[in-house]
Amino acid sequence: MTEYSIGVDLGGTNLRAAAVDQDGNMLAQVSASTSPEKGREFVIGEIVDSINELRAKQIDGRFAGVGIGVPGFILMEKGVILNSNNLSFLEDFPLRDDIERRLGVPVILENDANAAALGESWIGAGADVEDLVLLTLGTGIGGGIVYKGRVMHGFLGMAGELGHLTVVPNGNPCGCGNVGCLEKHASATAITCLAELMRVTPHPNPTAEEIYNLALAGDWKAQQIFHSMGEALGIALAMLINTFNFPLYLLSGGPLPAWDYFAPAMLEQVKRRSFTFRNTQTRIEKAKLGGQAGLYGAAYLPFQAQIHRH
Amino acid sequence: MTEYSIGVDLGGTNLRAAAVDQDGNMLAQVSASTSPEKGREFVIGEIVDSINELRAKQIDGRFAGVGIGVPGFILMEKGVILNSNNLSFLEDFPLRDDIERRLGVPVILENDANAAALGESWIGAGADVEDLVLLTLGTGIGGGIVYKGRVMHGFLGMAGELGHLTVVPNGNPCGCGNVGCLEKHASATAITCLAELMRVTPHPNPTAEEIYNLALAGDWKAQQIFHSMGEALGIALAMLINTFNFPLYLLSGGPLPAWDYFAPAMLEQVKRRSFTFRNTQTRIEKAKLGGQAGLYGAAYLPFQAQIHRH
Repeated sequence: MTEYSIGVDLGGTNLRAAAVDQDGNMLAQVSASTSPEKGREFVIGEIVDSINELRAKQIDGRFAGVGIGVPGFILMEKGVILNSNNLSFLEDFPLRDDIERRLGVPVILENDANAAALGESWIGAGADVEDLVLLTLGTGIGGGIVYKGRVMHGFLGMAGELGHLTVVPNGNPCGCGNVGCLEKHASATAITCLAELMRVTPHPNPTAEEIYNLALAGDWKAQQIFHSMGEALGIALAMLINTFNFPLYLLSGGPLPAWDYFAPAMLEQVKRRSFTFRNTQTRIEKAKLGGQAGLYGAAYLPFQAQIHRH
Repeated sequence: MTEYSIGVDLGGTNLRAAAVDQDGNMLAQVSASTSPEKGREFVIGEIVDSINELRAKQIDGRFAGVGIGVPGFILMEKGVILNSNNLSFLEDFPLRDDIERRLGVPVILENDANAAALGESWIGAGADVEDLVLLTLGTGIGGGIVYKGRVMHGFLGMAGELGHLTVVPNGNPCGCGNVGCLEKHASATAITCLAELMRVTPHPNPTAEEIYNLALAGDWKAQQIFHSMGEALGIALAMLINTFNFPLYLLSGGPLPAWDYFAPAMLEQVKRRSFTFRNTQTRIEKAKLGGQAGLYGAAYLPFQAQIHRH
């Protein structure tokens, strides 16, 4: 019998929910505002309403449950968000159990970058491997590690904090207390800040797209920024490859269109710093599911939990 | 019924073999010379003779099989050593199957640092946790990653190459092709080379023990060397903690007695570079089994394989 689940991608400003069948076909999708300023009860109401709206569509097949990707650390056994920069009012609250009680169906929480990695592993760029690492390049850099088809969580749900790998020991300061974190040298935000620092445009706050277009047009400063970003990514990727010896490392996020400008420097660093990379068929590739990866990964969680139980 | 296995620790110059029961009691031990210059047939003969010598002791209990720790990368499914600096004549040869045929019992090969990590996980400093990372500080730095009680191998048996994590992007050159590898800044060999570079003794080639004794006596150059080593270790450990969020990270090897001289700088770097470390009960400790860790870990392999099969 066919089955479907509902995945929810809870962001700082909006949420998306989708009904997905066990082959990864998206059957229906809804979205809503998160409006963090309206507080916990409102946001939980939006999550529950979105799920009920999808279930009211009378989709064929048995309902397997709900998976929710959230930005923050999750105590997996308790279903509690330990820490979330964007949704701090959801911290230290029995979120999973509360939503389960309201819906009467099983709910699984997962960190958003982990959910994205799981989505790519299920039906994305990693569908042909069991093990992968995903780096999501955005405001910061998130990481998700999938091993034997399952997310690695660590003992407190804090594994995969790959944006805070030190790539420049005396580099740019980071809000985490460190200096030289990967995300301060290679995130989308880092690119725009470097561009402002180098005055690549006559106006402040250039967008990543402007910088990319300047690089395309031959501007050496813009090209140098992507080169520098690529080097930082390459140092981090070499460390991940030397640590895991996984077959696949994926990148996603806004800067991906600039691949041709950052990838050469990235691969040069990886080749230099990882003999494993030089001597094996290790792949570094673009993720495939874009902004939908987390939604698919969240939807996969109930299916995976069933496999585990059977 | 009681059971026992035989673990073998195959080094570049000698091998040790031990019969161990399933509670981790060592029942008997033998050692032999590896004599690499005598070639493959001789070394395999020494391995087989050592195992037969132990089995001839008529130890009580069912015999579970043989585990062998070897210095090199292992293709786990094939039981073949892909690459070994010290025992290159064993590369690309069906070593596991050959020894199984000669003995008529199941044999499992494992990388030596991985075996040491598994030994510590079984009955050593990590007996109370499921997940740990071990760094072995010797000529180089080896790494072993144990997750849910089992070694992480990667797709070609090359996981855990933690001695080649980049900790100083423009640091000391390494034979692997990189610069700034952890093992070029924090291994036992790195300590003696730094001491020679700093002329801490009037004669060349000071031993690690001499440098340690000088540090004890208040020599600031000797102390600075351990400080520098600690910083390199701390940068690497912070990255491992941010990646894995495991509860335990272990150090073993010759420089351990100098803990009080390198650990403060190490922990300072870890605190600075890992908010996970600062906010959780993550432990960084000395391994407990010393040079026996790999032998115990090798002996555990047949027991673990049984658990897996049942």
